[in-house]
Amino acid sequence: MIAIDWGGSNLRAYRLDEAGRVLERRRGDIGALACSGRHGETLAGVIAGWKDPLVVLSGMIGARGGWVEAPYVPCPASTDVLAAGMVDMAGQAGAVPALAGRSLWCVPGMADHRGQSADVMRGEETQVTGLLEQLGPGSHTVCLPGTHSKWVQVEGGAITRITTALTGELYGLLRRHSILARSMPETEPAILDARAFDAGLAAARAGGGLLHDLFGVRTAALFDRFPAEALPSYLSGLLLGHELPPALASAGDGPVHLLGNDALLDRYARALAAHGRTVLRHREELAAAGMYRLARARFG
Amino acid sequence: MIAIDWGGSNLRAYRLDEAGRVLERRRGDIGALACSGRHGETLAGVIAGWKDPLVVLSGMIGARGGWVEAPYVPCPASTDVLAAGMVDMAGQAGAVPALAGRSLWCVPGMADHRGQSADVMRGEETQVTGLLEQLGPGSHTVCLPGTHSKWVQVEGGAITRITTALTGELYGLLRRHSILARSMPETEPAILDARAFDAGLAAARAGGGLLHDLFGVRTAALFDRFPAEALPSYLSGLLLGHELPPALASAGDGPVHLLGNDALLDRYARALAAHGRTVLRHREELAAAGMYRLARARFG
Repeated sequence: MIAIDWGGSNLRAYRLDEAGRVLERRRGDIGALACSGRHGETLAGVIAGWKDPLVVLSGMIGARGGWVEAPYVPCPASTDVLAAGMVDMAGQAGAVPALAGRSLWCVPGMADHRGQSADVMRGEETQVTGLLEQLGPGSHTVCLPGTHSKWVQVEGGAITRITTALTGELYGLLRRHSILARSMPETEPAILDARAFDAGLAAARAGGGLLHDLFGVRTAALFDRFPAEALPSYLSGLLLGHELPPALASAGDGPVHLLGNDALLDRYARALAAHGRTVLRHREELAAAGMYRLARARFG
Repeated sequence: MIAIDWGGSNLRAYRLDEAGRVLERRRGDIGALACSGRHGETLAGVIAGWKDPLVVLSGMIGARGGWVEAPYVPCPASTDVLAAGMVDMAGQAGAVPALAGRSLWCVPGMADHRGQSADVMRGEETQVTGLLEQLGPGSHTVCLPGTHSKWVQVEGGAITRITTALTGELYGLLRRHSILARSMPETEPAILDARAFDAGLAAARAGGGLLHDLFGVRTAALFDRFPAEALPSYLSGLLLGHELPPALASAGDGPVHLLGNDALLDRYARALAAHGRTVLRHREELAAAGMYRLARARFG
Protein backbone atom coordinates (compact mmCIF):
# COMPACT_ATOMS: atom_id res chain seq x y z
CA MET A 1 0.00 0.00 0.00
CA ILE A 2 0.94 3.67 -0.24
CA ALA A 3 0.70 5.96 2.77
CA ILE A 4 0.53 9.75 2.24
CA ASP A 5 1.15 12.07 5.16
CA TRP A 6 -0.06 15.37 3.64
CA GLY A 7 0.19 18.28 6.03
CA GLY A 8 -0.14 22.03 5.78
CA SER A 9 3.35 22.61 4.38
CA ASN A 10 4.49 19.40 2.67
CA LEU A 11 3.73 15.82 1.69
CA ARG A 12 5.54 12.61 2.64
CA ALA A 13 4.85 9.48 0.64
CA TYR A 14 5.73 5.92 1.75
CA ARG A 15 5.50 2.65 -0.11
CA LEU A 16 4.93 -0.15 2.38
CA ASP A 17 5.22 -3.93 2.05
CA GLU A 18 2.65 -6.46 3.31
CA ALA A 19 4.07 -6.26 6.82
CA GLY A 20 4.03 -2.45 6.92
CA ARG A 21 7.77 -1.99 6.43
CA VAL A 22 8.79 1.12 4.51
CA LEU A 23 10.21 0.15 1.10
CA GLU A 24 10.54 3.64 -0.41
CA ARG A 25 10.10 7.26 0.61
CA ARG A 26 9.37 10.38 -1.42
CA ARG A 27 8.63 13.99 -0.55
CA GLY A 28 6.65 16.80 -2.12
CA ASP A 29 6.84 20.42 -1.01
CA ILE A 30 3.26 21.49 -1.65
CA GLY A 31 0.91 21.95 1.30
CA ALA A 32 -2.51 20.30 1.49
CA LEU A 33 -4.38 23.60 1.66
CA ALA A 34 -2.29 25.33 -1.00
CA CYS A 35 -3.04 23.32 -4.14
CA SER A 36 -6.77 23.64 -4.61
CA GLY A 37 -7.87 21.89 -7.82
CA ARG A 38 -4.47 20.22 -8.29
CA HIS A 39 -4.44 17.65 -5.49
CA GLY A 40 -4.96 14.68 -7.82
CA GLU A 41 -2.25 15.62 -10.30
CA THR A 42 0.15 16.47 -7.50
CA LEU A 43 -0.39 13.10 -5.85
CA ALA A 44 -0.17 11.20 -9.13
CA GLY A 45 3.16 12.86 -9.81
CA VAL A 46 4.60 11.98 -6.41
CA ILE A 47 3.59 8.30 -6.54
CA ALA A 48 4.31 7.79 -10.26
CA GLY A 49 5.80 4.35 -10.83
CA TRP A 50 4.48 2.88 -7.57
CA LYS A 51 1.93 0.28 -8.64
CA ASP A 52 0.16 -0.38 -5.32
CA PRO A 53 -3.58 0.23 -5.80
CA LEU A 54 -4.42 1.20 -2.16
CA VAL A 55 -3.53 4.76 -1.18
CA VAL A 56 -4.29 5.99 2.34
CA LEU A 57 -4.01 9.73 3.07
CA SER A 58 -3.82 11.49 6.40
CA GLY A 59 -3.36 15.03 7.72
CA MET A 60 -4.62 18.44 6.62
CA ILE A 61 -5.53 16.96 3.24
CA GLY A 62 -8.79 15.90 4.99
CA ALA A 63 -9.50 19.34 6.48
CA ARG A 64 -12.02 21.89 5.32
CA GLY A 65 -10.23 23.58 2.41
CA GLY A 66 -8.24 20.41 1.67
CA TRP A 67 -9.02 17.77 -0.99
CA VAL A 68 -11.92 16.18 0.86
CA GLU A 69 -13.46 17.13 4.22
CA ALA A 70 -13.28 14.05 6.44
CA PRO A 71 -15.53 14.60 9.49
CA TYR A 72 -13.90 14.49 12.93
CA VAL A 73 -14.34 11.23 14.87
CA PRO A 74 -15.13 12.03 18.53
CA CYS A 75 -13.14 10.78 21.52
CA PRO A 76 -12.88 8.10 22.76
CA ALA A 77 -11.96 6.14 19.64
CA SER A 78 -10.13 2.84 19.19
CA THR A 79 -8.24 2.04 16.00
CA ASP A 80 -11.31 0.19 14.71
CA VAL A 81 -13.56 3.19 15.30
CA LEU A 82 -11.06 5.54 13.66
CA ALA A 83 -10.69 3.13 10.70
CA ALA A 84 -14.49 3.02 10.32
CA GLY A 85 -14.40 6.82 9.92
CA MET A 86 -12.08 6.65 6.91
CA VAL A 87 -13.56 8.41 3.90
CA ASP A 88 -13.71 6.77 0.46
CA MET A 89 -12.25 9.24 -2.06
CA ALA A 90 -13.50 7.43 -5.16
CA GLY A 91 -15.27 10.62 -6.23
CA GLN A 92 -12.11 12.69 -6.01
CA ALA A 93 -9.80 10.06 -7.51
CA GLY A 94 -12.22 9.22 -10.33
CA ALA A 95 -11.88 12.73 -11.71
CA VAL A 96 -8.12 12.27 -12.19
CA PRO A 97 -7.15 9.97 -15.11
CA ALA A 98 -3.60 9.57 -13.74
CA LEU A 99 -5.06 7.90 -10.63
CA ALA A 100 -7.16 5.34 -12.58
CA GLY A 101 -7.16 1.94 -10.89
CA ARG A 102 -6.24 3.33 -7.46
CA SER A 103 -8.41 3.16 -4.36
CA LEU A 104 -7.98 6.29 -2.19
CA TRP A 105 -9.04 6.61 1.47
CA CYS A 106 -8.67 9.54 3.83
CA VAL A 107 -8.11 9.15 7.59
CA PRO A 108 -10.46 11.41 9.60
CA GLY A 109 -9.34 13.90 12.23
CA MET A 110 -10.48 13.55 15.83
CA ALA A 111 -12.40 15.87 18.15
CA ASP A 112 -12.70 16.07 21.93
CA HIS A 113 -15.93 17.78 22.99
CA ARG A 114 -15.64 17.20 26.73
CA GLY A 115 -13.85 20.37 27.82
CA GLN A 116 -15.27 23.91 28.08
CA SER A 117 -14.11 24.42 24.52
CA ALA A 118 -13.75 21.66 21.94
CA ASP A 119 -10.38 20.36 20.81
CA VAL A 120 -9.33 18.76 17.55
CA MET A 121 -6.40 17.19 15.74
CA ARG A 122 -5.78 16.04 12.20
CA GLY A 123 -2.76 13.93 11.33
CA GLU A 124 -1.65 13.40 14.92
CA GLU A 125 -4.30 10.68 15.46
CA THR A 126 -2.53 8.71 12.72
CA GLN A 127 0.89 9.12 14.33
CA VAL A 128 -0.48 8.07 17.72
CA THR A 129 -2.16 5.07 16.07
CA GLY A 130 1.24 4.13 14.67
CA LEU A 131 2.63 4.23 18.20
CA LEU A 132 -0.11 2.14 19.85
CA GLU A 133 1.59 -1.22 19.41
CA GLN A 134 4.68 0.03 21.26
CA LEU A 135 2.55 1.59 24.01
CA GLY A 136 0.67 -1.59 24.91
CA PRO A 137 -2.32 -1.62 27.30
CA GLY A 138 -2.91 0.85 30.12
CA SER A 139 -2.84 4.68 30.21
CA HIS A 140 -0.34 6.74 28.27
CA THR A 141 0.37 10.40 27.58
CA VAL A 142 1.69 11.35 24.16
CA CYS A 143 2.93 14.86 23.36
CA LEU A 144 3.49 16.04 19.78
CA PRO A 145 5.13 19.49 20.00
CA GLY A 146 4.77 21.93 17.13
CA THR A 147 3.03 25.08 15.94
CA HIS A 148 0.04 23.70 17.79
CA SER A 149 1.30 21.22 20.37
CA LYS A 150 -0.97 18.23 20.85
CA TRP A 151 -1.28 16.29 24.09
CA VAL A 152 -3.07 12.99 23.58
CA GLN A 153 -4.29 10.59 26.24
CA VAL A 154 -4.48 6.89 25.38
CA GLU A 155 -6.40 4.38 27.50
CA GLY A 156 -6.50 0.68 26.63
CA GLY A 157 -5.67 1.27 22.99
CA ALA A 158 -8.18 4.09 22.48
CA ILE A 159 -7.53 7.82 22.10
CA THR A 160 -9.56 9.36 24.92
CA ARG A 161 -8.54 12.98 25.20
CA ILE A 162 -6.96 15.77 23.11
CA THR A 163 -5.46 19.00 24.44
CA THR A 164 -3.93 21.57 22.12
CA ALA A 165 -1.59 24.40 23.15
CA LEU A 166 -0.85 27.28 20.77
CA THR A 167 2.74 27.40 22.03
CA GLY A 168 4.68 27.23 18.76
CA GLU A 169 2.49 29.72 16.96
CA LEU A 170 2.60 32.18 19.85
CA TYR A 171 6.38 31.86 20.02
CA GLY A 172 6.60 32.77 16.34
CA LEU A 173 4.22 35.72 16.68
CA LEU A 174 6.01 37.18 19.70
CA ARG A 175 9.40 36.47 18.16
CA ARG A 176 8.61 38.30 14.92
CA HIS A 177 5.86 40.84 15.53
CA SER A 178 5.75 41.94 19.19
CA ILE A 179 7.65 44.52 21.21
CA LEU A 180 9.80 41.59 22.39
CA ALA A 181 11.10 41.13 18.84
CA ARG A 182 12.93 44.47 19.03
CA SER A 183 15.34 43.08 21.63
CA MET A 184 16.08 39.81 19.85
CA PRO A 185 18.31 38.84 16.93
CA GLU A 186 16.26 38.37 13.75
CA THR A 187 17.57 34.93 12.94
CA GLU A 188 16.96 32.09 15.36
CA PRO A 189 20.11 31.26 17.36
CA ALA A 190 21.46 27.83 16.38
CA ILE A 191 21.62 26.49 19.91
CA LEU A 192 19.40 26.78 22.96
CA ASP A 193 20.74 28.93 25.82
CA ALA A 194 20.05 26.48 28.63
CA ARG A 195 20.45 29.02 31.44
CA ALA A 196 17.94 31.44 29.89
CA PHE A 197 15.56 28.59 29.01
CA ASP A 198 15.64 27.32 32.60
CA ALA A 199 15.10 30.86 33.92
CA GLY A 200 12.00 31.06 31.71
CA LEU A 201 10.73 27.78 33.14
CA ALA A 202 11.33 29.09 36.66
CA ALA A 203 9.59 32.41 35.96
CA ALA A 204 6.51 30.54 34.73
CA ARG A 205 6.29 28.77 38.10
CA ALA A 206 6.14 32.05 40.03
CA GLY A 207 2.40 32.36 39.40
CA GLY A 208 2.37 35.80 37.78
CA GLY A 209 0.52 34.49 34.74
CA LEU A 210 1.69 34.25 31.14
CA LEU A 211 0.48 37.74 30.13
CA HIS A 212 2.62 39.25 32.86
CA ASP A 213 5.59 36.96 32.38
CA LEU A 214 5.84 37.90 28.70
CA PHE A 215 6.53 41.50 29.68
CA GLY A 216 9.43 40.12 31.71
CA VAL A 217 11.19 39.30 28.43
CA ARG A 218 11.07 43.03 27.68
CA THR A 219 12.49 44.03 31.06
CA ALA A 220 15.12 41.26 30.87
CA ALA A 221 16.36 43.07 27.75
CA LEU A 222 15.98 46.51 29.33
CA PHE A 223 18.09 45.60 32.36
CA ASP A 224 20.55 43.37 30.45
CA ARG A 225 19.60 40.25 32.37
CA PHE A 226 20.55 38.14 29.34
CA PRO A 227 22.38 38.85 26.08
CA ALA A 228 20.04 39.40 23.11
CA GLU A 229 20.90 35.97 21.66
CA ALA A 230 19.60 34.30 24.85
CA LEU A 231 16.20 36.02 24.87
CA PRO A 232 14.52 33.62 22.41
CA SER A 233 15.52 30.77 24.74
CA TYR A 234 14.10 32.65 27.72
CA LEU A 235 10.83 33.20 25.85
CA SER A 236 10.74 29.55 24.84
CA GLY A 237 11.25 28.44 28.45
CA LEU A 238 8.48 30.77 29.60
CA LEU A 239 6.00 29.40 27.09
CA LEU A 240 6.81 25.74 27.77
CA GLY A 241 6.68 26.47 31.49
CA HIS A 242 3.11 27.66 31.00
CA GLU A 243 2.11 24.86 28.61
CA LEU A 244 3.20 21.99 30.85
CA PRO A 245 1.33 22.26 34.18
CA PRO A 246 -2.24 22.21 32.79
CA ALA A 247 -1.28 19.61 30.19
CA LEU A 248 0.26 17.36 32.85
CA ALA A 249 -2.71 17.82 35.20
CA SER A 250 -4.73 15.33 33.17
CA ALA A 251 -1.77 13.01 32.47
CA GLY A 252 -0.88 9.98 34.56
CA ASP A 253 2.41 9.50 36.39
CA GLY A 254 4.11 7.48 33.64
CA PRO A 255 6.67 8.74 31.16
CA VAL A 256 5.56 11.23 28.51
CA HIS A 257 5.92 9.88 24.97
CA LEU A 258 7.38 12.56 22.70
CA LEU A 259 6.97 12.66 18.91
CA GLY A 260 8.53 15.34 16.74
CA ASN A 261 11.78 16.82 15.49
CA ASP A 262 14.89 16.46 17.62
CA ALA A 263 15.52 20.14 18.41
CA LEU A 264 11.98 20.66 19.67
CA LEU A 265 12.00 17.37 21.58
CA ASP A 266 15.21 18.45 23.33
CA ARG A 267 13.36 21.48 24.72
CA TYR A 268 10.32 19.51 25.80
CA ALA A 269 12.46 16.81 27.39
CA ARG A 270 14.37 19.46 29.35
CA ALA A 271 11.19 21.22 30.47
CA LEU A 272 9.51 17.94 31.42
CA ALA A 273 12.58 16.89 33.41
CA ALA A 274 12.32 20.19 35.31
CA HIS A 275 8.76 19.13 36.15
CA GLY A 276 10.00 15.77 37.41
CA ARG A 277 8.80 13.77 34.40
CA THR A 278 10.65 11.17 32.38
CA VAL A 279 10.21 11.01 28.62
CA LEU A 280 10.41 8.43 25.83
CA ARG A 281 11.20 9.72 22.37
CA HIS A 282 9.84 8.21 19.17
CA ARG A 283 10.80 8.56 15.52
CA GLU A 284 8.73 10.84 13.29
CA GLU A 285 7.82 8.19 10.71
CA LEU A 286 4.92 6.89 12.79
CA ALA A 287 2.36 8.33 10.35
CA ALA A 288 3.16 5.53 7.87
CA ALA A 289 2.81 2.90 10.60
CA GLY A 290 -0.51 4.47 11.65
CA MET A 291 -1.94 4.37 8.14
CA TYR A 292 -0.83 0.76 7.76
CA ARG A 293 -2.57 -0.16 11.01
CA LEU A 294 -5.75 1.69 10.02
CA ALA A 295 -5.77 0.02 6.60
CA ARG A 296 -5.44 -3.40 8.26
CA ALA A 297 -8.27 -2.59 10.64
CA ARG A 298 -10.51 -1.44 7.79
CA PHE A 299 -9.62 -3.82 4.97
CA GLY A 300 -8.00 -6.74 6.79
CA MET B 1 3.12 75.85 33.94
CA ILE B 2 2.88 73.63 30.86
CA ALA B 3 2.39 69.87 31.17
CA ILE B 4 3.31 67.63 28.21
CA ASP B 5 2.07 64.04 28.15
CA TRP B 6 4.21 62.66 25.30
CA GLY B 7 3.56 59.01 24.61
CA GLY B 8 4.50 56.53 21.91
CA SER B 9 1.85 57.67 19.46
CA ASN B 10 0.91 61.26 20.28
CA LEU B 11 1.42 64.32 22.48
CA ARG B 12 -1.06 66.13 24.72
CA ALA B 13 -0.19 69.60 25.95
CA TYR B 14 -1.91 71.41 28.85
CA ARG B 15 -1.53 74.96 30.12
CA LEU B 16 -2.27 75.02 33.83
CA ASP B 17 -3.00 77.90 36.22
CA GLU B 18 -1.42 78.39 39.66
CA ALA B 19 -3.93 75.96 41.21
CA GLY B 20 -3.35 73.25 38.58
CA ARG B 21 -6.57 73.86 36.66
CA VAL B 22 -6.40 73.24 32.92
CA LEU B 23 -6.70 76.55 31.02
CA GLU B 24 -6.00 75.25 27.52
CA ARG B 25 -5.39 71.97 25.72
CA ARG B 26 -3.56 71.14 22.50
CA ARG B 27 -2.63 67.92 20.72
CA GLY B 28 0.13 66.78 18.43
CA ASP B 29 0.14 63.52 16.50
CA ILE B 30 3.83 62.68 16.57
CA GLY B 31 5.07 59.91 18.86
CA ALA B 32 7.94 60.41 21.31
CA LEU B 33 10.10 57.73 19.70
CA ALA B 34 9.32 58.75 16.12
CA CYS B 35 10.80 62.24 15.88
CA SER B 36 14.47 61.81 16.62
CA GLY B 37 16.33 65.12 16.26
CA ARG B 38 13.10 67.12 15.99
CA HIS B 39 11.72 66.90 19.54
CA GLY B 40 12.57 70.51 20.39
CA GLU B 41 11.05 72.04 17.26
CA THR B 42 7.97 69.83 17.58
CA LEU B 43 7.43 70.90 21.18
CA ALA B 44 8.08 74.58 20.42
CA GLY B 45 5.46 74.43 17.69
CA VAL B 46 2.83 72.83 19.92
CA ILE B 47 3.27 75.31 22.79
CA ALA B 48 3.81 78.41 20.61
CA GLY B 49 2.12 81.41 22.20
CA TRP B 50 2.01 79.92 25.69
CA LYS B 51 4.36 82.08 27.75
CA ASP B 52 4.75 79.89 30.90
CA PRO B 53 8.48 79.23 31.45
CA LEU B 54 8.15 75.88 33.28
CA VAL B 55 7.51 72.85 31.03
CA VAL B 56 7.18 69.39 32.58
CA LEU B 57 7.22 66.35 30.28
CA SER B 58 6.17 62.81 31.02
CA GLY B 59 5.80 59.50 29.16
CA MET B 60 7.87 57.73 26.50
CA ILE B 61 9.66 61.02 25.78
CA GLY B 62 11.91 60.03 28.73
CA ALA B 63 12.57 56.48 27.46
CA ARG B 64 15.68 55.15 25.78
CA GLY B 65 15.25 56.31 22.18
CA GLY B 66 13.22 59.36 23.29
CA TRP B 67 14.47 62.93 23.79
CA VAL B 68 16.27 62.26 27.06
CA GLU B 69 16.70 58.99 28.97
CA ALA B 70 15.31 59.59 32.46
CA PRO B 71 16.43 56.69 34.71
CA TYR B 72 13.73 54.58 36.36
CA VAL B 73 12.97 55.38 40.01
CA PRO B 74 12.59 52.14 41.98
CA CYS B 75 9.50 51.17 44.02
CA PRO B 76 8.43 52.18 46.58
CA ALA B 77 8.37 55.90 45.75
CA SER B 78 6.34 58.75 47.19
CA THR B 79 5.56 61.87 45.14
CA ASP B 80 8.60 63.59 46.71
CA VAL B 81 10.91 60.75 45.71
CA LEU B 82 9.50 60.68 42.19
CA ALA B 83 9.83 64.49 41.94
CA ALA B 84 13.46 64.27 43.08
CA GLY B 85 14.09 61.93 40.13
CA MET B 86 12.93 64.54 37.59
CA VAL B 87 15.60 65.22 34.99
CA ASP B 88 16.69 68.76 34.08
CA MET B 89 16.57 69.07 30.29
CA ALA B 90 18.53 72.32 30.09
CA GLY B 91 21.00 70.61 27.76
CA GLN B 92 18.29 69.51 25.35
CA ALA B 93 16.28 72.74 25.50
CA GLY B 94 19.38 74.95 25.19
CA ALA B 95 20.04 73.55 21.73
CA VAL B 96 16.64 74.78 20.48
CA PRO B 97 16.41 78.59 19.98
CA ALA B 98 12.60 78.43 19.91
CA LEU B 99 12.66 77.17 23.51
CA ALA B 100 14.88 79.97 24.85
CA GLY B 101 13.80 81.13 28.30
CA ARG B 102 11.97 77.88 29.11
CA SER B 103 12.89 75.47 31.89
CA LEU B 104 12.22 71.84 30.85
CA TRP B 105 11.99 68.88 33.23
CA CYS B 106 11.26 65.23 32.48
CA VAL B 107 9.40 62.92 34.88
CA PRO B 108 11.22 59.58 35.33
CA GLY B 109 9.63 56.19 34.80
CA MET B 110 9.41 53.71 37.64
CA ALA B 111 10.73 50.17 38.08
CA ASP B 112 9.74 47.31 40.37
CA HIS B 113 12.62 44.89 40.93
CA ARG B 114 10.99 42.71 43.54
CA GLY B 115 9.42 40.02 41.35
CA GLN B 116 11.19 37.14 39.50
CA SER B 117 11.40 39.50 36.54
CA ALA B 118 11.55 43.29 36.76
CA ASP B 119 8.61 45.49 35.84
CA VAL B 120 8.52 49.06 34.62
CA MET B 121 6.20 51.87 33.59
CA ARG B 122 6.68 55.27 32.03
CA GLY B 123 3.85 57.81 31.97
CA GLU B 124 1.49 55.78 34.17
CA GLU B 125 3.39 56.87 37.34
CA THR B 126 2.40 60.44 36.46
CA GLN B 127 -1.29 59.55 35.99
CA VAL B 128 -1.33 57.66 39.27
CA THR B 129 0.36 60.64 40.96
CA GLY B 130 -2.47 62.79 39.60
CA LEU B 131 -4.94 60.43 41.24
CA LEU B 132 -3.28 60.29 44.69
CA GLU B 133 -5.22 63.17 46.23
CA GLN B 134 -8.52 61.48 45.40
CA LEU B 135 -7.28 58.13 46.72
CA GLY B 136 -6.32 59.37 50.16
CA PRO B 137 -4.37 57.26 52.68
CA GLY B 138 -4.44 53.45 52.88
CA SER B 139 -3.95 50.78 50.20
CA HIS B 140 -5.29 51.10 46.67
CA THR B 141 -5.16 49.18 43.40
CA VAL B 142 -5.06 51.15 40.17
CA CYS B 143 -5.43 49.48 36.77
CA LEU B 144 -4.52 51.29 33.53
CA PRO B 145 -5.60 48.99 30.67
CA GLY B 146 -3.93 49.29 27.28
CA THR B 147 -1.45 47.70 24.91
CA HIS B 148 0.50 46.90 28.04
CA SER B 149 -1.93 46.97 30.98
CA LYS B 150 -0.43 48.34 34.16
CA TRP B 151 -1.54 47.35 37.65
CA VAL B 152 -0.20 49.72 40.28
CA GLN B 153 -0.34 49.28 44.05
CA VAL B 154 -0.43 52.43 46.19
CA GLU B 155 0.24 52.37 49.94
CA GLY B 156 0.10 55.51 52.05
CA GLY B 157 0.65 57.83 49.10
CA ALA B 158 3.57 55.87 47.65
CA ILE B 159 3.67 53.65 44.57
CA THR B 160 4.80 50.29 45.91
CA ARG B 161 4.30 47.74 43.16
CA ILE B 162 3.97 47.52 39.35
CA THR B 163 2.62 44.59 37.37
CA THR B 164 2.36 44.69 33.58
CA ALA B 165 0.27 42.37 31.42
CA LEU B 166 0.84 42.17 27.66
CA THR B 167 -2.92 41.74 27.11
CA GLY B 168 -3.62 44.47 24.56
CA GLU B 169 -0.60 43.70 22.43
CA LEU B 170 -1.32 39.97 22.43
CA TYR B 171 -4.94 40.63 21.47
CA GLY B 172 -3.75 42.64 18.47
CA LEU B 173 -1.21 40.02 17.42
CA LEU B 174 -3.66 37.14 17.63
CA ARG B 175 -6.39 39.21 16.01
CA ARG B 176 -4.28 40.14 13.00
CA HIS B 177 -1.55 37.55 12.51
CA SER B 178 -2.54 34.19 14.03
CA ILE B 179 -4.60 31.24 12.79
CA LEU B 180 -7.45 32.76 14.85
CA ALA B 181 -7.51 35.79 12.55
CA ARG B 182 -8.78 33.62 9.68
CA SER B 183 -12.12 33.09 11.44
CA MET B 184 -12.67 36.74 12.41
CA PRO B 185 -13.89 39.80 10.53
CA GLU B 186 -10.97 42.06 9.59
CA THR B 187 -12.41 45.22 11.09
CA GLU B 188 -13.10 45.38 14.81
CA PRO B 189 -16.84 45.00 15.54
CA ALA B 190 -18.26 48.27 16.92
CA ILE B 191 -19.83 46.71 20.00
CA LEU B 192 -18.78 44.01 22.42
CA ASP B 193 -20.68 40.71 22.20
CA ALA B 194 -21.37 40.30 25.91
CA ARG B 195 -22.32 36.62 25.71
CA ALA B 196 -19.11 35.67 23.91
CA PHE B 197 -17.01 37.90 26.19
CA ASP B 198 -18.52 36.24 29.28
CA ALA B 199 -17.94 32.79 27.77
CA GLY B 200 -14.28 33.76 27.32
CA LEU B 201 -14.08 34.82 30.98
CA ALA B 202 -15.64 31.50 32.00
CA ALA B 203 -13.29 29.44 29.81
CA ALA B 204 -10.30 31.14 31.44
CA ARG B 205 -11.51 29.95 34.86
CA ALA B 206 -11.54 26.30 33.77
CA GLY B 207 -7.82 25.97 34.43
CA GLY B 208 -6.72 24.73 31.01
CA GLY B 209 -4.17 27.52 30.70
CA LEU B 210 -4.04 30.40 28.24
CA LEU B 211 -2.05 28.54 25.56
CA HIS B 212 -4.73 25.87 25.46
CA ASP B 213 -7.67 28.24 25.75
CA LEU B 214 -6.50 30.23 22.73
CA PHE B 215 -6.93 27.16 20.54
CA GLY B 216 -10.53 27.11 21.78
CA VAL B 217 -11.15 30.27 19.74
CA ARG B 218 -10.23 28.21 16.68
CA THR B 219 -12.56 25.34 17.57
CA ALA B 220 -15.35 27.78 18.51
CA ALA B 221 -15.17 28.93 14.88
CA LEU B 222 -14.83 25.38 13.54
CA PHE B 223 -17.96 24.17 15.34
CA ASP B 224 -19.94 27.44 14.90
CA ARG B 225 -20.17 28.09 18.63
CA PHE B 226 -20.33 31.84 17.92
CA PRO B 227 -20.80 33.91 14.78
CA ALA B 228 -17.54 35.29 13.34
CA GLU B 229 -18.34 38.83 14.61
CA ALA B 230 -18.48 37.51 18.20
CA LEU B 231 -15.08 35.80 18.14
CA PRO B 232 -13.02 38.95 18.91
CA SER B 233 -15.19 39.42 22.03
CA TYR B 234 -14.61 35.79 23.02
CA LEU B 235 -10.85 36.26 22.59
CA SER B 236 -10.98 39.48 24.59
CA GLY B 237 -12.85 37.74 27.43
CA LEU B 238 -10.33 34.91 27.44
CA LEU B 239 -7.37 37.27 27.71
CA LEU B 240 -8.91 39.43 30.44
CA GLY B 241 -9.96 36.27 32.26
CA HIS B 242 -6.30 35.26 32.34
CA GLU B 243 -4.97 38.73 33.19
CA LEU B 244 -7.16 39.31 36.23
CA PRO B 245 -6.55 36.48 38.75
CA PRO B 246 -2.76 36.95 39.14
CA ALA B 247 -3.15 40.75 39.04
CA LEU B 248 -5.82 40.64 41.76
CA ALA B 249 -3.82 38.21 43.89
CA SER B 250 -1.63 41.06 45.12
CA ALA B 251 -4.48 43.60 45.32
CA GLY B 252 -6.48 44.34 48.44
CA ASP B 253 -10.23 43.87 48.78
CA GLY B 254 -11.17 47.45 47.94
CA PRO B 255 -12.49 48.75 44.63
CA VAL B 256 -10.18 48.73 41.62
CA HIS B 257 -9.50 52.22 40.26
CA LEU B 258 -9.66 52.21 36.47
CA LEU B 259 -7.97 54.76 34.20
CA GLY B 260 -8.29 54.69 30.44
CA ASN B 261 -10.63 55.04 27.49
CA ASP B 262 -14.30 54.24 27.99
CA ALA B 263 -14.61 51.25 25.64
CA LEU B 264 -11.68 49.46 27.27
CA LEU B 265 -12.83 50.37 30.77
CA ASP B 266 -16.26 48.88 30.00
CA ARG B 267 -14.58 45.53 29.33
CA TYR B 268 -12.41 45.67 32.44
CA ALA B 269 -15.36 46.72 34.61
CA ARG B 270 -17.40 43.79 33.27
CA ALA B 271 -14.56 41.30 33.80
CA LEU B 272 -13.84 42.63 37.30
CA ALA B 273 -17.53 42.41 38.21
CA ALA B 274 -17.45 38.75 37.15
CA HIS B 275 -14.59 38.35 39.65
CA GLY B 276 -16.66 39.98 42.37
CA ARG B 277 -14.83 43.30 42.33
CA THR B 278 -16.24 46.80 42.29
CA VAL B 279 -14.56 49.51 40.25
CA LEU B 280 -14.17 53.29 40.28
CA ARG B 281 -13.52 55.00 36.97
CA HIS B 282 -11.39 58.10 36.55
CA ARG B 283 -10.98 60.60 33.74
CA GLU B 284 -7.95 60.30 31.46
CA GLU B 285 -6.58 63.82 32.07
CA LEU B 286 -4.83 62.78 35.25
CA ALA B 287 -1.40 63.13 33.61
CA ALA B 288 -1.70 66.94 33.78
CA ALA B 289 -2.70 66.75 37.46
CA GLY B 290 0.25 64.44 38.11
CA MET B 291 2.78 66.76 36.51
CA TYR B 292 1.35 69.68 38.46
CA ARG B 293 1.70 67.76 41.71
CA LEU B 294 5.26 66.71 40.86
CA ALA B 295 6.23 70.28 39.95
CA ARG B 296 4.83 71.54 43.28
CA ALA B 297 6.76 68.85 45.15
CA ARG B 298 9.97 69.74 43.34
CA PHE B 299 9.77 73.51 43.00
CA GLY B 300 7.21 74.50 45.62
